[in-house]
Amino acid sequence: MPTRVRDRSREMFRERLAEALSEVFVARGFDDVTVAEAARAVGISRATFFRYFSSKEDAALASVEGSNFDFGAVLADLDLRPDDSCWSLLQRTFRHSLAGVGGATSSQLDQLRMIHATPSLRARLSFRRLQLEPSLTAALVGHGVPADRAHTAAMAGLAALEVAWERWALHESPSLARALDEAFADLTAADKPISAG
Amino acid sequence: MPTRVRDRSREMFRERLAEALSEVFVARGFDDVTVAEAARAVGISRATFFRYFSSKEDAALASVEGSNFDFGAVLADLDLRPDDSCWSLLQRTFRHSLAGVGGATSSQLDQLRMIHATPSLRARLSFRRLQLEPSLTAALVGHGVPADRAHTAAMAGLAALEVAWERWALHESPSLARALDEAFADLTAADKPISAG
Repeated sequence: MPTRVRDRSREMFRERLAEALSEVFVARGFDDVTVAEAARAVGISRATFFRYFSSKEDAALASVEGSNFDFGAVLADLDLRPDDSCWSLLQRTFRHSLAGVGGATSSQLDQLRMIHATPSLRARLSFRRLQLEPSLTAALVGHGVPADRAHTAAMAGLAALEVAWERWALHESPSLARALDEAFADLTAADKPISAG
Repeated sequence: MPTRVRDRSREMFRERLAEALSEVFVARGFDDVTVAEAARAVGISRATFFRYFSSKEDAALASVEGSNFDFGAVLADLDLRPDDSCWSLLQRTFRHSLAGVGGATSSQLDQLRMIHATPSLRARLSFRRLQLEPSLTAALVGHGVPADRAHTAAMAGLAALEVAWERWALHESPSLARALDEAFADLTAADKPISAG
């Protein structure tokens, strides 16, 4: 038990630190501030910084991208409805997992915009999402989807999730839930004849 | 004219260099060889290396991922058929653009496998593909697809392309063309009820 308490305290401190550091990155420009400067600005040493984060990118992403979202477990637990498709299962999984994200503060949206505007962060974020793919694929397979189809659907579904985050961050959508619904509606429409309008 | 000839020579030399360097990376392990060592192994200086490549990752990706594929232009030039969907247009675009890739040597497949097994390269490759998205989106819009739908379809289509490269590299598919057809068939099937089997 003491270990778990310590782990949780550490995790909470890391989250607070990530938020504070992100404010520094947003205010000064991610590429223009060094790790040492960012650490100094929030009152910690460079060594402490590296006890909590492996890189500047890691710190910038820690507070927005819930690395703790276990999409695969949520998807595995969904009850399969008769008309469920891969898209509808993925959409419900993301909506359910991210239901708490809706109330983002404007500073969190500033962070998201900074991430989408900074190539090194964008690349890292894409890659992190890729790491979520195996558990989503496995959960789809668990619901009876053939393995190859599950893999492609998970990859494309994560692309739709990325579109949703982006539209929400850029204020093109009033909520993340709405942005997700729209992105998955786009996937369904992408299979329909264009000429049908 | 002389400038264009010089540009072409430079580009051809860069390609040859990328191939030679990739053989070194595959043989010794990408993460285990430094830029200086790789340059020495192919008989150039570190300074020459950086005249042609911005990083070790850049060199490793240069010879496989045709950074010169202009998917957007190919898509813009396609004749729209009555039953074309976003998926079918993207599929035809990738098949047409990558038709020449079919005859990959086993050393090129070794490179692809190395890239998919090396997180830093995989991340960079994903990000490069993301950079192809705006021109694909614009070309879909040119064919009459609403902008939001075009953006999501382009992102998901690039995810399917990534799946196809991966299956081909891992020898799960006999050709890149076949892998592309299968990945796009997966996208269509992902919208169908799972229970229909």
